[in-house]
Amino acid sequence: MLEETIAAIRPPDEPAMVAARHRQGRLTKPAGSLGALEELSVRLAGLAGACPPPLPEPAAVAIFAGDHGVHAQGVTPWPQEVTAQMIGNFLAGGAVVNAFARQAGAVVTVVDVGVATPLPAVPAPSPAAVPPPSGPVPPPRAGTAGSTRPAAPGTGGGAPRLVAAKVRAGTRDLTVTAALTRDEARAALETGIRVAGDLIDGGARILLTGDMGIGNTTPAAALVAAFTGADPAEVTGRGTGVDDPTYARKVAVVRAGLRRHDPDPADPLGVLAAVGGLEHAALAGLILAAAARRTPVLLDGVIAVSAALAAAAFAPAAVGAMVAGHRSAEPGAGVALRRLGLDPLIDLGLRLGEGTGALLALPVVTGAVRVLHEVATFDTAGVTEQDTGPGEPPTGVVGASVTGDGTVGR
Amino acid sequence: MLEETIAAIRPPDEPAMVAARHRQGRLTKPAGSLGALEELSVRLAGLAGACPPPLPEPAAVAIFAGDHGVHAQGVTPWPQEVTAQMIGNFLAGGAVVNAFARQAGAVVTVVDVGVATPLPAVPAPSPAAVPPPSGPVPPPRAGTAGSTRPAAPGTGGGAPRLVAAKVRAGTRDLTVTAALTRDEARAALETGIRVAGDLIDGGARILLTGDMGIGNTTPAAALVAAFTGADPAEVTGRGTGVDDPTYARKVAVVRAGLRRHDPDPADPLGVLAAVGGLEHAALAGLILAAAARRTPVLLDGVIAVSAALAAAAFAPAAVGAMVAGHRSAEPGAGVALRRLGLDPLIDLGLRLGEGTGALLALPVVTGAVRVLHEVATFDTAGVTEQDTGPGEPPTGVVGASVTGDGTVGR
Repeated sequence: MLEETIAAIRPPDEPAMVAARHRQGRLTKPAGSLGALEELSVRLAGLAGACPPPLPEPAAVAIFAGDHGVHAQGVTPWPQEVTAQMIGNFLAGGAVVNAFARQAGAVVTVVDVGVATPLPAVPAPSPAAVPPPSGPVPPPRAGTAGSTRPAAPGTGGGAPRLVAAKVRAGTRDLTVTAALTRDEARAALETGIRVAGDLIDGGARILLTGDMGIGNTTPAAALVAAFTGADPAEVTGRGTGVDDPTYARKVAVVRAGLRRHDPDPADPLGVLAAVGGLEHAALAGLILAAAARRTPVLLDGVIAVSAALAAAAFAPAAVGAMVAGHRSAEPGAGVALRRLGLDPLIDLGLRLGEGTGALLALPVVTGAVRVLHEVATFDTAGVTEQDTGPGEPPTGVVGASVTGDGTVGR
Repeated sequence: MLEETIAAIRPPDEPAMVAARHRQGRLTKPAGSLGALEELSVRLAGLAGACPPPLPEPAAVAIFAGDHGVHAQGVTPWPQEVTAQMIGNFLAGGAVVNAFARQAGAVVTVVDVGVATPLPAVPAPSPAAVPPPSGPVPPPRAGTAGSTRPAAPGTGGGAPRLVAAKVRAGTRDLTVTAALTRDEARAALETGIRVAGDLIDGGARILLTGDMGIGNTTPAAALVAAFTGADPAEVTGRGTGVDDPTYARKVAVVRAGLRRHDPDPADPLGVLAAVGGLEHAALAGLILAAAARRTPVLLDGVIAVSAALAAAAFAPAAVGAMVAGHRSAEPGAGVALRRLGLDPLIDLGLRLGEGTGALLALPVVTGAVRVLHEVATFDTAGVTEQDTGPGEPPTGVVGASVTGDGTVGR
């Protein structure tokens, strides 16, 4: 399944990109005035092989959850059972990712690909019941029950859904042994591929990466260092609340893991097995499958971009499907994004994960595509174009009904 | 009316800010992990005098349109009649601002505060008819007909609306004489105050600034230079497509205007009259009125932030109502934002105006507030908090139903 997915990934469609660039130049705005959104629309046209590309609606967030043997090394102040507890919070609709998903009209799927402790009992998801845990009841949101925006069928109708796909109950301690066997890493990758296929078959037109795993910024730092050659101190961050001694320990743990396994960046399955995590591997699979299906994948923070490096090592053309949602405050995220050649859409110091940064960026992506669908051209709107140079007449069209001066159209 | 508005502006409410900061620390996420969104939520609580502050819905974009006598100096390649033509495009729903407003569920109000050429004939706005000018028909959007999101009553039910409030048909050439009399500048300011009041009375819970005026980056640069003391070359940009000779002319024009009038930054009405524009003055009025009504105002690009400097000169506490939507590619925008002490939410090289940058940032603002409304606390969600230090027990609460270890709550 992994090899088939990789083989299906194609480079961007040049004619669609040319058409999108041309269309951006004909819309009623100065050329280039939408900045990064213009090039984003061109990339998405190339990915879809169509201009305009489809609007990225509905959107689906896939949160892959796993635990980490390296937690035993004291790399985080958070107890391991918080991974399972937060899954309960996601399924109850109480986390930040849920609030942002309701707002954006995105459905949330939680995938247990490797949680170590028992999951809390949660009520069965019901399409009609996604109450906020506190505060006034919000109006029906796009993508939830009562919405006018299409929700992806088969994704729970708006309520968060749990997919049980545990490969093993957490990874092994990467300072002692390989975190995963190659077969386990492959199983996690193929879980990500399957989840992506299910979501796209269910109607999703963009996938957003999410993650949950106490300790998972440590393997993310190791992956970024392994794939980019950066020094562990350069790519290791403070995660979600690490003090100075813990930070020093964390850098030492990443360094020790890399020294022990000496992973080969040309063997991404081996890198994921040696120093990765189950959610990192599953995210790499999700990204590869999205690329194979010519569906954009909006990357969240450092976990996502470390997985994106693995995906790009499997298939360089997979980068064409990636959109960087935000620049995480974790230093490894910036290093990975530079290597991937991706500019993030949002840069607000977020370091939460869950998919929250991707969700904040989703309206920017949708807006970039919407412009190609909905904005009038100079020709149809009766708006004069700018002069192209001193002494030359306007190159564009003035609608005679608007200005009455009868400039010739084209 | 101007003096009453200024007198009504109050400093932020400290207890509400303290409550918001405390609440951010109790939500199920690591403290600080939402980066700039956390402080934004605290500022909005202070503005509203309540925690949580109201969700900023519905949103209203006010596009103030005017022309500029300084256009005669050749500061832009665009013919002056494009201002009027673009109003036609706004009212027909064909501009980028319309596409972004449909997506965000915001209503659009266009205010002719000083257009020089005749407005095109446009069909009367109809709540049921906001067709995109090209491409497939999108699904009903929030804020438009068929939406489930509340639209501001009295704002046209989603269709763009025109307010005729022309103070004069364009400003005078600021290199020759004052752009406006003090009375004209005051009339434009009070138009902005009236529009803000109407929108808020109609239900709007956040105002977004928009502008249209061929040549209006020239007075914006002059305003930024006058209020900050920056050199004209430092704050003058290429607007919407200026070549090298035009750029040099534009800097010289800004310098000549400032030298001729030597405006006093302590007299903002005088500055607006000498080197401003009708839309700049009206935006300053809108901002002051929003602040007086404790309603956030989301600033767009360089025109908006130059007007915001004027508003802050009238009433320093007005800054408490301002949220910087984005950092325009125009250099004056960055200078003005630094002076105002505002960090922009989006930085994607946009330089279109119309309100497009503010609309892209709106979901970030809404998301920041939504977190305070909808996210579960550690106490209610049964999620363990992080250890506060080596050897210490967790300070938080573990839901016994989740982990069964019975840690004491608080």
